[in-house]
Amino acid sequence: MQYKAIKLVKRPTLNITPDVFELVTLETPELKDGEILLRQTHMSLDPAMKGWMSEDRNSYIPPVELGDVMRSSGIAEVVESKSDSFAAGDRVHGMIGWTEYAVSNGAGLRQLPPGIPEEAVLCVLALPGLTAYQGLMVIGKPKAGETLLVSGAAGSVGSMVGQIAKAEGLNVVGTAGSDEKCSWLRDELGFDHAINYKSDTLAKQLAKATPDGVDLYFENTGGPVQHLAFSRMNAHGRIVVCGMIADYNTDKPAPGPSWLNIIRKRLRIQGFTMPDHWDEVPAMSEKLLAYYLAGKLKYRAHKLDGLESAIEGINLLFSGGNHGKLMVVL
Amino acid sequence: MQYKAIKLVKRPTLNITPDVFELVTLETPELKDGEILLRQTHMSLDPAMKGWMSEDRNSYIPPVELGDVMRSSGIAEVVESKSDSFAAGDRVHGMIGWTEYAVSNGAGLRQLPPGIPEEAVLCVLALPGLTAYQGLMVIGKPKAGETLLVSGAAGSVGSMVGQIAKAEGLNVVGTAGSDEKCSWLRDELGFDHAINYKSDTLAKQLAKATPDGVDLYFENTGGPVQHLAFSRMNAHGRIVVCGMIADYNTDKPAPGPSWLNIIRKRLRIQGFTMPDHWDEVPAMSEKLLAYYLAGKLKYRAHKLDGLESAIEGINLLFSGGNHGKLMVVL
Repeated sequence: MQYKAIKLVKRPTLNITPDVFELVTLETPELKDGEILLRQTHMSLDPAMKGWMSEDRNSYIPPVELGDVMRSSGIAEVVESKSDSFAAGDRVHGMIGWTEYAVSNGAGLRQLPPGIPEEAVLCVLALPGLTAYQGLMVIGKPKAGETLLVSGAAGSVGSMVGQIAKAEGLNVVGTAGSDEKCSWLRDELGFDHAINYKSDTLAKQLAKATPDGVDLYFENTGGPVQHLAFSRMNAHGRIVVCGMIADYNTDKPAPGPSWLNIIRKRLRIQGFTMPDHWDEVPAMSEKLLAYYLAGKLKYRAHKLDGLESAIEGINLLFSGGNHGKLMVVL
Repeated sequence: MQYKAIKLVKRPTLNITPDVFELVTLETPELKDGEILLRQTHMSLDPAMKGWMSEDRNSYIPPVELGDVMRSSGIAEVVESKSDSFAAGDRVHGMIGWTEYAVSNGAGLRQLPPGIPEEAVLCVLALPGLTAYQGLMVIGKPKAGETLLVSGAAGSVGSMVGQIAKAEGLNVVGTAGSDEKCSWLRDELGFDHAINYKSDTLAKQLAKATPDGVDLYFENTGGPVQHLAFSRMNAHGRIVVCGMIADYNTDKPAPGPSWLNIIRKRLRIQGFTMPDHWDEVPAMSEKLLAYYLAGKLKYRAHKLDGLESAIEGINLLFSGGNHGKLMVVL
């Protein structure tokens, strides 16, 4: 059977232009013993993909090799199985790639929990939720009553960070790139304050929203919020560095703040990426599922239609044009 | 009895000029019950004093109030006692201040261990050794075989950091401000490499001395070493931020490096100051004493003569003009 897939054929320089991809038509192979054939239904688009496309071999995960199908996580249905672990009709989640069909030996695939919509899996139980939980709870070690500031708060990770923090009794302030996103954070997700970082009065609003300073800053964006957040950190504050999306599409990353405050306030600044923590996924998934079932994690999905929509669509993540977790429905 | 003391009467702006101090003659008071009279013999001068003189009330320790005797640690002899805990002739170590004599109720004073020279107490068992141990071992969590880079390596803290790391089986590279200091680090203290940070080929020498990258960077200085060290950090590297002496005498602190590398390499950057860790001092002192008695911690003392020598002498710490731990012998 023929299917479409998208390969990475060039490394992007600054922006992700369509010519870095090649749309190909492939033929599903005969399954060997132990293999399964997957038909992908929901494919996740994530900011981390920019890094996976670069040739930086010193990063946390090897780059996608040129000529390989582009890497992504997604949800698929098992359409044929020669494996004892999977049956036709099973719904699985894992690293499937930019493709309509894929053959797998089952490694790294997880069965979907029953009764959970596919979108919720990608928004809550997959990379965004896991990343949020790992960064906030394991790295950030929040205490009830503390003030959390999260940048990129309307993004797939940031929106989970803020909601988990609310569930844990923190005072939650978020920054986002539009008034509409800020309203969503406040009115739908229950953030205490949400500030449009493009506002002329960002510094003033941030000071007003954090009268007792910031105990925990969850960094998703870099950009103007970084230096302001840094200057408002309380003694023994923690900064969790998860993303720097403002600097992914530039060859001149902005300098960070002076380290003087790191001593004065005894700050801890820590970066992390999920691939270091796969062994913790089962335990984290349980926690996330519990929050979700208790109605504490809302989400919105920004759905693109059909495999090829990913080629242009991925740039919505860097322009901030997406509203909710970006995904392709196949 | 009359004695001399030095009060802080003005806050320094950039440099510590003599007019921020006032030399006064005071009279020792009649001791009350529980009090002791101390005659100071060795007074420590430390970079942290710059911070204590500033009016920043958000820092880790309150500023010295204007009109108060300047704060410092030192060693003193008990010359008179109305306390059950101390006898005339006892030798003690504690926060005594810029003064020849002081009255104390004994709070925070520790008896000197027997058989240890006063200089060794100030160099090894006092602030420099404690700071080095806390930063390297407790915050940095080194593993034998890792590579440590320490800036300000010939300083009172840096020289202890490098020697403790050698004792713990690390590969130790230091930067310092003169060839003479570098020779001392290599030939006397056993550093694997020592590099003059003023050299034109600093980047090249640093790369050569750390062929496998840097696992642990102990930051004492800021300045040109910071960005180079940051770019050589290995995955899961730790940066312990202890001092930024290059930026203490400027109102335009240099920006830090972009945070992108913090994610890519999953770095942890952590600041600390000893006043947060006084409760750990007894345990750390024991460890330091053991290293010292095993001959693993060498030091050199840069001795100034007489109380008033502190007024100009303190600036040696910021010009790098001191050779070894700076102290005033009274």
